[in-house]
Amino acid sequence: MKKLVFILFFIPLFAGAQNATDDSLFIHKIAVNILSSDASYNNIHYLTKNIGQRLSGSPHMYIAEQWGAQVLKNAGADNVVLQQCMVPHWVHNGTDKAMVTYKDKNGNALQYVLNILSLGNSVGTGANGVQAPLVRVNNFDELEEKKNELKGKIVFYNNPFDDTLINTFNTYGKNIIYRIVGADRASKYDAVAVMIRSMTNTPGQNYPHTGSLGYSDSVKKIPAAAMGLQDVKKLDSLFDESLPVTCSLTTYGTMLPDTIAHNIIGELKGTEHPEQIITVGGHLDSWYPAEGANDDGTGIVQTIEVLRVLRALNYQPKHTIHFVLFANEENGTRGAKQYADEAKHNNEQHIFALESDAGGFTPRGFSFDITDAAIMQKINTWKPFFTPYYGDRFTVGEAGADVSYLKDAFHTPQAGLSPDSQRYFYIHHAATDVFENVDIREMKLGAINMAALIYLVDKYGLQ
Amino acid sequence: MKKLVFILFFIPLFAGAQNATDDSLFIHKIAVNILSSDASYNNIHYLTKNIGQRLSGSPHMYIAEQWGAQVLKNAGADNVVLQQCMVPHWVHNGTDKAMVTYKDKNGNALQYVLNILSLGNSVGTGANGVQAPLVRVNNFDELEEKKNELKGKIVFYNNPFDDTLINTFNTYGKNIIYRIVGADRASKYDAVAVMIRSMTNTPGQNYPHTGSLGYSDSVKKIPAAAMGLQDVKKLDSLFDESLPVTCSLTTYGTMLPDTIAHNIIGELKGTEHPEQIITVGGHLDSWYPAEGANDDGTGIVQTIEVLRVLRALNYQPKHTIHFVLFANEENGTRGAKQYADEAKHNNEQHIFALESDAGGFTPRGFSFDITDAAIMQKINTWKPFFTPYYGDRFTVGEAGADVSYLKDAFHTPQAGLSPDSQRYFYIHHAATDVFENVDIREMKLGAINMAALIYLVDKYGLQ
Repeated sequence: MKKLVFILFFIPLFAGAQNATDDSLFIHKIAVNILSSDASYNNIHYLTKNIGQRLSGSPHMYIAEQWGAQVLKNAGADNVVLQQCMVPHWVHNGTDKAMVTYKDKNGNALQYVLNILSLGNSVGTGANGVQAPLVRVNNFDELEEKKNELKGKIVFYNNPFDDTLINTFNTYGKNIIYRIVGADRASKYDAVAVMIRSMTNTPGQNYPHTGSLGYSDSVKKIPAAAMGLQDVKKLDSLFDESLPVTCSLTTYGTMLPDTIAHNIIGELKGTEHPEQIITVGGHLDSWYPAEGANDDGTGIVQTIEVLRVLRALNYQPKHTIHFVLFANEENGTRGAKQYADEAKHNNEQHIFALESDAGGFTPRGFSFDITDAAIMQKINTWKPFFTPYYGDRFTVGEAGADVSYLKDAFHTPQAGLSPDSQRYFYIHHAATDVFENVDIREMKLGAINMAALIYLVDKYGLQ
Repeated sequence: MKKLVFILFFIPLFAGAQNATDDSLFIHKIAVNILSSDASYNNIHYLTKNIGQRLSGSPHMYIAEQWGAQVLKNAGADNVVLQQCMVPHWVHNGTDKAMVTYKDKNGNALQYVLNILSLGNSVGTGANGVQAPLVRVNNFDELEEKKNELKGKIVFYNNPFDDTLINTFNTYGKNIIYRIVGADRASKYDAVAVMIRSMTNTPGQNYPHTGSLGYSDSVKKIPAAAMGLQDVKKLDSLFDESLPVTCSLTTYGTMLPDTIAHNIIGELKGTEHPEQIITVGGHLDSWYPAEGANDDGTGIVQTIEVLRVLRALNYQPKHTIHFVLFANEENGTRGAKQYADEAKHNNEQHIFALESDAGGFTPRGFSFDITDAAIMQKINTWKPFFTPYYGDRFTVGEAGADVSYLKDAFHTPQAGLSPDSQRYFYIHHAATDVFENVDIREMKLGAINMAALIYLVDKYGLQ
């Protein structure tokens, strides 16, 4: 079948069938090289196990930056630049705790501990914590209905993932609003803290999943934390019995003044159009509970792998290619903003950008954020090249947070790698985002498809 | 993009666009029902954790048969038949052991234990075991070169998986010959036993992977076992240093006379063409080291799920549908043979068959074993229905061992579910094929695509 597809599609689509054959063979070489190499295994192992979590401004972030620069050099970059930017410096300086107290129907006082994590950017409760009745709301409509009951209370947002959506990013996209603005909305009605149901569909686990929130200036900043789904289930059963529930909450989080970080940029200089830049990247920072393995260690390693394999195969790019390990995607995207701002200031030409920040799982294709129909038509003719490597599902949608600033600045056509999404939110921003939950073969397949796309864009351009 | 595909493809391909919309909506209902239901979770949990391994002829096989009949009834079968067949009755009646002894370069005698499992259908060594020098051969060519050195020796087949093949079934298909006939080929040159490198690409693990072998009548049956990849690595280092290696091997395995087993067949009676039969199935038996979770618990559960969801949605099939839990796929395919033989004897009409026996991983599509180009053309027009559920990769190839007998008997057009293959051989026939390595969402996605295909074949036929 695969061979049949090649015969049917390749020949008519290209001026010369020989080109298609050459490209197909070159992409096969990419695949064989990546699948035979230990480089990506060694890189993801080192980044997760020797460096580990690397929150913006943390000591490990700086260690990761130095590592990234060295690995890009080793992979064959013509030069590596550390591009400075200022990033938010939030620190999580303690162990969050929560204890629920309630009376059962016989009047017995009972309590149990919840497994929680402070949301990123959140203020902490202070060492003395807060103690207050819990109010459950399943959504913002219920928050509004109960707005007069919230003063002095802790609001528990309990909006579940919609398991009937096939792509799990779609339910994440709908639910994330509770994490981002839940604290602000509750503070408006004088709640003292917020707890959210973790942004996950994890079956049978109780890990809390953190992630950033945002405060507006108009209301008091109140602490916010996430809890695991098993704790949510227990709490739900108390609320379903209409038992009054009180929570003692101690969380940690302090926003220090902005600090210095860097985008790490490896460059391959173009031979024909050095002034035209193709960007490929992921983000080097991570959340604090684990090793940032799939978010976004795999994106970083795949980015480095694209560079390594192009050099290993002696490919001479026509355009300049930037391999970017972006700073601070998780709680600010300041690295991405700096990269686009400097590019704008220097009148650079950014012709294409590719991001990998959706986990290292088996690839399905790419999400293209491209408005020009002619460009999309050209890219669609390349689909058969990706079929053997499972990357031929080309959809239209967002490419990624980091490259989005290039779109704003230059309308740069861009894409994001789309891995299979089923397992991503089991581990996303949780203690389980560790090396052991990276599948090396699946990560490598993603890198193969990324390298193939960069190769084709570079060789044929997009115009 | 998905919406665009629908608009571009659906309308021209069908006589009426309304049909496409109705079908699309019905398949969406299938998806929502399956993703919202606990039935498949409960079934795979019970089959793996309460029943567990279910080798042909074992007590657990009979428990599994009773369970299967009950679950098919509960799922809404019009009737359930236990179709008797005779199956090989191989028993693994002991704990296999292997110890390697060698002298290092300083003459020190050293030894270590290997983690091994007897191959299925293999004779055992007897309780006293065998002790003999090991001879490493990387392939059959090397076996032939060394044929004069093999008398009284244990042959160690060390043919590795080719990690550069994207679909892992392709390398399995090339390597399996060493498991199937390795013992026979070595016995011809008077070797006393065989050890094989496990059929796996498991990174960093040491689980041995069993599976069936076959003996010919012309040579003496010698024992055969598989070892894990870490042990292979250690052994390799000894051979690379040309150190003489001796192995003490004790393995268990006895082939008893054939015994009774059953295909468990749930039926939905057709309303328009009850005499025309569509088959969907997986196999109920499993190997002995684990729970047969992905091989083929998930195929069984998906088969039941197709029945359950069609009934839950009050679908009245035009054709008769058989939901078959096949006996004895692993070491005989006698259930499949019986099913086809009886169908032939009864002059049944088998118009389509679908098998799921490639793991419960996230689906990619189907492998169609269909020679009639017109039928394949018709099926290809259905692709857009599968796109939202990631099952639209339609390839041409084998459908599955169990339904292949229907092809031999009736030229029945057939298909096999094609899940992503990257993780299958980590757990295939090993102690790790347990419930914990089943991803429930991924298994459900497979069931959705299977139900959609059965629905479309039933509604529109294949002619």
